[in-house]
Amino acid sequence: MSAAYKPRLRLWLRLLKTTQWIEGEIRERFRTEFATTLPRFDVMAALHRNPDGLRMSYISGLLNVSNGNITGIVDRLEDEGLAERRPVAGDRRAYSVKLTPAGLEDFEHLARAHEKWVDELLTNVSAAEAEELTDFIGRTTPERQIEAAE
Amino acid sequence: MSAAYKPRLRLWLRLLKTTQWIEGEIRERFRTEFATTLPRFDVMAALHRNPDGLRMSYISGLLNVSNGNITGIVDRLEDEGLAERRPVAGDRRAYSVKLTPAGLEDFEHLARAHEKWVDELLTNVSAAEAEELTDFIGRTTPERQIEAAE
Repeated sequence: MSAAYKPRLRLWLRLLKTTQWIEGEIRERFRTEFATTLPRFDVMAALHRNPDGLRMSYISGLLNVSNGNITGIVDRLEDEGLAERRPVAGDRRAYSVKLTPAGLEDFEHLARAHEKWVDELLTNVSAAEAEELTDFIGRTTPERQIEAAE
Repeated sequence: MSAAYKPRLRLWLRLLKTTQWIEGEIRERFRTEFATTLPRFDVMAALHRNPDGLRMSYISGLLNVSNGNITGIVDRLEDEGLAERRPVAGDRRAYSVKLTPAGLEDFEHLARAHEKWVDELLTNVSAAEAEELTDFIGRTTPERQIEAAE
C-alpha cells in the first residue's frame, strides 16, 4: 500500500458517487421523457458510430452487456423499423446490424436530449475546467483502457 | 444548450469510461481472488459503517439495489455466519441486520484488498492530485446528491 492510498480511495468513492448520480439522472430522464432505456441508447450509439454495421458479438463486447440482452434490444429496434440485421457474407452464423434512416433520426433526437441533460447536470463545470479534467483523467488512466472502451 | 456542452459531454464520457474500467477491475479481482461479488462487498460495507444494524429496506435504498437481491445476499451472509438478522421491536414485519464478529473480520480483510487495488489502479494520481480532484468533483456536484449517496 502506498502513502497515497487514502486520498486515492476517497477519489475513487467520489468518482463512483458522481458517476452513479449522473447515470441515474440520465436513466430516469430516458425513462420518463422517452420511455426508453440507457442500454438501448448505448446500443444505438454504438450503431450510430459504425454506420457500416456491427456484428452482434462485437456490440456486446463494446458495451459489456450479455449477448442475450443485446439480442432483445436489437429485436425490438428491428420490430420498430429502427435497425436491420443482415447475414455476414462467408459466415453463416453471423449477423451484422445497422440503424435504418428512421433509426439514425431517432438516435440523433435522443442524443441531442442526452447532450442537453449532461450540459445541465455539469452546469457547475466551466468549459475550461471540463477540458482540463478530461485531459487529467485521460493521463491518469492507462491509454489501452480508454481505447478498449471506445 | 450552453456553449460548454461539448467539453461537458466529453468529460462525462471520460468519467464514465474511467469509472467503468476501475469498477470492472475491482469486480474481476473480487471474483478471482475472493470468489465474491461487488454487490455483496457493498452490502457488507454498509453494514460495517452501521454496526448497530440496518433495516433491510434501508440497505436497498442506500445501494440502489432491489430488495430481492439484498435478501439473497443477506441470506447467504447469514448462512455463512457473517451476518445476523433480528426482528425490530415494535414492527413485526421489519428486520435489522448486522455483521457478526466473523463478518466484521471478513469485511476488513476484503476492504484492505480493495484499498490496495484502488491504490494500484490510481497509481498515476499523486496524493495531492487525488485530494484536489476529490474537492473539485465535490464542488461541481450538488451537495444533496453526494449526501444522498452516502
